[in-house]
Amino acid sequence: MSSKPTHRSALHEKDGVSQPNFISKSSVASIKKNRRKQPSVDELVQGILNQDKVALSRAITLVESKNTTHLAKATEIIEQCLPHANKSIRIGITGVPGVGKSTFIEAFGKYLTGLGKKVAVLAVDPSSSISSGSILGDKTRMEDLVKDENAFIRPSASGDSLGGVARKTRETIILCEACGFDTIVIETVGVGQSETAVHSMVDFFLLLKLAGAGDELQGIKRGIIEMADAIVINKADGDNVKRAQMARTEFKRALHLYPQKASEWLPKVVTASALKQKGIDDVWQMIEAFRESTKANNYFETHRKEQNRFWLLQTIEERLKHNFYNNPDVKKQLDSYLNATENSTISPFNAAQQLLKLL
Amino acid sequence: MSSKPTHRSALHEKDGVSQPNFISKSSVASIKKNRRKQPSVDELVQGILNQDKVALSRAITLVESKNTTHLAKATEIIEQCLPHANKSIRIGITGVPGVGKSTFIEAFGKYLTGLGKKVAVLAVDPSSSISSGSILGDKTRMEDLVKDENAFIRPSASGDSLGGVARKTRETIILCEACGFDTIVIETVGVGQSETAVHSMVDFFLLLKLAGAGDELQGIKRGIIEMADAIVINKADGDNVKRAQMARTEFKRALHLYPQKASEWLPKVVTASALKQKGIDDVWQMIEAFRESTKANNYFETHRKEQNRFWLLQTIEERLKHNFYNNPDVKKQLDSYLNATENSTISPFNAAQQLLKLL
Repeated sequence: MSSKPTHRSALHEKDGVSQPNFISKSSVASIKKNRRKQPSVDELVQGILNQDKVALSRAITLVESKNTTHLAKATEIIEQCLPHANKSIRIGITGVPGVGKSTFIEAFGKYLTGLGKKVAVLAVDPSSSISSGSILGDKTRMEDLVKDENAFIRPSASGDSLGGVARKTRETIILCEACGFDTIVIETVGVGQSETAVHSMVDFFLLLKLAGAGDELQGIKRGIIEMADAIVINKADGDNVKRAQMARTEFKRALHLYPQKASEWLPKVVTASALKQKGIDDVWQMIEAFRESTKANNYFETHRKEQNRFWLLQTIEERLKHNFYNNPDVKKQLDSYLNATENSTISPFNAAQQLLKLL
Repeated sequence: MSSKPTHRSALHEKDGVSQPNFISKSSVASIKKNRRKQPSVDELVQGILNQDKVALSRAITLVESKNTTHLAKATEIIEQCLPHANKSIRIGITGVPGVGKSTFIEAFGKYLTGLGKKVAVLAVDPSSSISSGSILGDKTRMEDLVKDENAFIRPSASGDSLGGVARKTRETIILCEACGFDTIVIETVGVGQSETAVHSMVDFFLLLKLAGAGDELQGIKRGIIEMADAIVINKADGDNVKRAQMARTEFKRALHLYPQKASEWLPKVVTASALKQKGIDDVWQMIEAFRESTKANNYFETHRKEQNRFWLLQTIEERLKHNFYNNPDVKKQLDSYLNATENSTISPFNAAQQLLKLL
């Protein structure tokens, strides 16, 4: 106890503890140095063009970031990669859960790398933002392919909207192509609008089906069959072979009901067993035939141009809506206008006018 | 000829001809007076509430005008009519050309006015802006109904976009209801997206079909059957009766493939002959049953609220796009960005960003 006179203020502070000297200064320096070692745009572009998968992954992380500095960098990288992209076939694969998408893609991917192809597998799954990654999230589902030097697997980006998720995947395609991947596979699940998004970024759209019980045509989301360039009936093995053949006949008939495609391609129905590695070569030969015939009639190029155009307009419209609904005044008043409109105390058109005035 | 010295300038003007005095001053006054006699908002609203079809027509003309003063007046009229609207059943009718829509609507309308109903027939046909009026344009097609005191027929508004045409029709519904019309029939043709627009403004959606040759399900636009609350097979008379019955069976089976509607209403298939006035009463009884059951389970009200909400958001999004694409800078640069995007010299997302900066 101190015996000194104690006119101490309530604000008195104890002396601080002096800096302990067991922090290694060299470690701090090294951490700071590594921190600064974020690769530059040029470094990443160079890496991608040198077919370096680590650089590719890092660039994709920038594309998927929410940080505006990262996004500006991503835009630059994409622009620099663009002249080196486009030389690939882009294949969309959809099918309801349980149809065996992962097994099929693994067998298909391994078959292609066996042919000397370089295969990138991407995914569009907006639900992954809620469930924190569902499809492709678990890389162990494609154990063999993930170890393959000539394959690159990236799970779905997460995001608030399908539009955002799809945009990120579409930009990732450009990066993968510039990195030398000549076959891009984009997986999606048979729910919501994600098929439409994937369909609008691929050359060839493949619907994976099972020879299921009951009416084959029942339960297929209308519109998806219309988009398909091929229906592959999976799990055509063992006891299933006969049922798969029957399903094939039924789907063939169903496809006849649709008007001819702009590609002049007649959609095919094939059976396959990803588990038994059967029919995979047929699928690839069919895709090669598609590429040949659509390159010959110029549809391949025209279609990609149309898709680019579509994505430009789509992005603009999404941004316009985003900016509107995130305007602070609109946010404040939207609900009361919605309520008034629902209850017919204001007409929808007048309410819209009032809200637009807030911009 | 004048003999005066002639230092006349080249700018010399001949004397004007004096005002002839054979224009009747009273006529001029009368024309000016009539011109000023444009009815006020209050006069039009009062007329509409007094069930005056002339006032109704004039108000609709304001809704359809492109003049901003007229449109401001229209908005006021609609707001004042709103509390008196909503007490009706709104029925959408679609079907491809040749299916007998006019004949059906005439028979249906006459049947309803015979029951003491007041029937307004409107149309949504965006193609009419090109062809200058197709459906309902020729009122002689519904000769009897048009003379009926308790019926009101208005052809489709014209406009550059389906959105614009649909908006005008939707506002017209409010005016018709305030004018005492308790049954609103909205006709559309089986082309383009107009069905979706009509579906989103009616309580009950009816698809008119023929017992045609060949496969009944072929050629039906996917999505329309899904929207239908009823399919009416028209021209079920003479030699057609048996075929109509067969078509009925086939459609019934097709309807089973769809998931249950939020209204809990099971879509019906009935046969009718508008020409022979057969089955019209069945159609109306079915609609009455629909109204009863959806009022009981509260779907009727909820659905109208949802539609109001939808139209508010839809209008906002259309306006945002309209404002963007009509911005002079955007107009100037859009094409070159579209070209660059199509040819992959800029990515769609970067192009979108650059264009959005112009706003």
